Amino acid sequence: MNKKIIALLGACLILLSACGNVTNTNTETNSDSSKGTEKVTKTQLSKDYYRVVMKNDKEYQTSPSRGVSLSLNSGYNMKAFESGLIGLSQTPFPTDNNYFREGQLIDSATAKSWIGRKAEVEDPNSSAGPNGLNPPDNGQIEPDTRAPRYLAQILEQNYMVKDGDNYKLSGVSIGLALNSVDYYQKVLYGAEFQTPISRADFEAKGKEIANEVVARLRKKDGMGNVPIMVALFEQSAKDTLAGGVYFASAMSENGSTTVGEWSAINDQKIIFPNNDGKSSEEKTNFDNFKNSIQSFFPNLSGVTAEAYYQNNQLSKMAIKITTQFYGESEIISFTQFIADKTSLLPATIPIEITVNSMEGIEAFLSRDANTTEFKYHIFD
Amino acid sequence: MNKKIIALLGACLILLSACGNVTNTNTETNSDSSKGTEKVTKTQLSKDYYRVVMKNDKEYQTSPSRGVSLSLNSGYNMKAFESGLIGLSQTPFPTDNNYFREGQLIDSATAKSWIGRKAEVEDPNSSAGPNGLNPPDNGQIEPDTRAPRYLAQILEQNYMVKDGDNYKLSGVSIGLALNSVDYYQKVLYGAEFQTPISRADFEAKGKEIANEVVARLRKKDGMGNVPIMVALFEQSAKDTLAGGVYFASAMSENGSTTVGEWSAINDQKIIFPNNDGKSSEEKTNFDNFKNSIQSFFPNLSGVTAEAYYQNNQLSKMAIKITTQFYGESEIISFTQFIADKTSLLPATIPIEITVNSMEGIEAFLSRDANTTEFKYHIFD
Repeated sequence: MNKKIIALLGACLILLSACGNVTNTNTETNSDSSKGTEKVTKTQLSKDYYRVVMKNDKEYQTSPSRGVSLSLNSGYNMKAFESGLIGLSQTPFPTDNNYFREGQLIDSATAKSWIGRKAEVEDPNSSAGPNGLNPPDNGQIEPDTRAPRYLAQILEQNYMVKDGDNYKLSGVSIGLALNSVDYYQKVLYGAEFQTPISRADFEAKGKEIANEVVARLRKKDGMGNVPIMVALFEQSAKDTLAGGVYFASAMSENGSTTVGEWSAINDQKIIFPNNDGKSSEEKTNFDNFKNSIQSFFPNLSGVTAEAYYQNNQLSKMAIKITTQFYGESEIISFTQFIADKTSLLPATIPIEITVNSMEGIEAFLSRDANTTEFKYHIFD
Repeated sequence: MNKKIIALLGACLILLSACGNVTNTNTETNSDSSKGTEKVTKTQLSKDYYRVVMKNDKEYQTSPSRGVSLSLNSGYNMKAFESGLIGLSQTPFPTDNNYFREGQLIDSATAKSWIGRKAEVEDPNSSAGPNGLNPPDNGQIEPDTRAPRYLAQILEQNYMVKDGDNYKLSGVSIGLALNSVDYYQKVLYGAEFQTPISRADFEAKGKEIANEVVARLRKKDGMGNVPIMVALFEQSAKDTLAGGVYFASAMSENGSTTVGEWSAINDQKIIFPNNDGKSSEEKTNFDNFKNSIQSFFPNLSGVTAEAYYQNNQLSKMAIKITTQFYGESEIISFTQFIADKTSLLPATIPIEITVNSMEGIEAFLSRDANTTEFKYHIFD
């Protein structure tokens, strides 16, 4: 079934929170193909983003394990787990010649059996079984004596390169979400208990699991020699407003059934305001911003921020403002006032500010990296 | 109590749905003032926007009738009622020397009594009374025999100019929201009935009410000679997804107690897709866009648009896409795909596209007037 592939250059997968301009590139390549049902998106957002491989030029290829990350502790974790892995993949699989596709190697049933507990035989109730990567049930139910589940979820992403008129797999990224707290019930529908897991423990266990996952992937068709990146994600607790972070990554190359040396990733997310007892310039800046915002309306506004640190350096900030509005003029004027006060916020780093009412988002302002201007939008 | 006024030029009130860049202007004027408690916002968004007069350099001056427009048929009407009046005010009270303030002349109790029915004595239950601008109750309860309420709401906005070191009132804008359908109950807590009102009827009645409102405002302190603009707003029905539009405006100048000649405003809002039997290029464009978007995911996406026409010419479009997402990569790729398909939409006019899930807004794309580029943002 010969069809034409239109290799439309440019369009992209966006890394993390992205904001920018869309430019249509008209670089199109028409050519014959032996299995031309995969095409890519077209619009170039920036060279930081991946283009996406699509089916039939119009359908997104969902993963056979679609939706697995919905089972994480929070939406914050889900987003951080996925977009973080895309970010880390840019080093081994650069965006200029690699295209993105959702993982096609591990399906839902497989993912479910891998994150279960190890057991001699399949247990349909607990998804424990011979393929389980978590420790076997030791029969204990107390937080400090039971064997906790370390692995919370597996995420697979595929990276592709052009190969003549087709696309071939150039790399696979695997994210392993690890529990810093394992939530469990002693009896079905019972109260929820917690087993806290130390960083040392879930890191050691995560590295062990990584090798096992790589060994299993190497047995899949066509995976003999494809580079695999594995990254370890520390899932944040259920009551945390910040999503988790990746803390280590490693490559498996040349068909190795294990990963090579691990690289540490020193990322951290801090929610403002907080009472952690530490003082920092960012904290003072944020408090000043918050106080000036809160004096604007007779009714109080809620102002919180998530600050993202890389190697102890503030690298971006997302601010959420929630207040009650009595009309469109108030929203407009308030957004205006916030724009005035952005001078109180740290300079140069990317910042996203959303203004919300009970009706949902009303306005947002954002500043990209390496710019001094805030872009804004007020929703109709 | 002498204080300094910092007349910070630039900042603004945003007209309608606004999107753009924020530039700080550093033009500050420090000077003494005899009653310097009013200052203005600082950041310049564009010369299309009003700067806002604030109390004590940090508090928004809410109107004593704050929240009145919340009683309109829908949030769509509320936003259109307010932002439409700001837009119309730009002709008599230009943004380059006028500042915006929420209306301070008509308080809540007054607004409530004016939109009540005319009656000999105050009726605390129905807000009927001697000041009511709607026809007296004729005792009938059937849709076609009762006297409908024409006036649904009154909105006041103040425009100010610098006067030495202070600000003085330079103009007042009044919006009158008129019912095309009057909703009522025959008995308290009973079923809702409707009296439809013809355009000719609510237009004639609206013009009559406009003169009465102007006459009443002229009696207020300091209002002897201030120009007053009155604009008539047709409120859309409760089941309509589009907000209403202004259809006429007139000025009262030189202290006149009536308005001068009325100018017709030919605005229209149309929701796509629709089955109104008419075909248009915009409709075909939108259908093509909608169909290509809906093929992207295995699950269906809802795609609707509000098209805004001025003098039968499409002048802007707001598109709302709602779909279920199973992860961050899907949102990113989908936004990317939409960017590709914007080439199917009408060129040159401003367009706003929001992408929503059950969790709220996930991404948006927008194009300003006179630009070819779409800006985009994906929310973290």
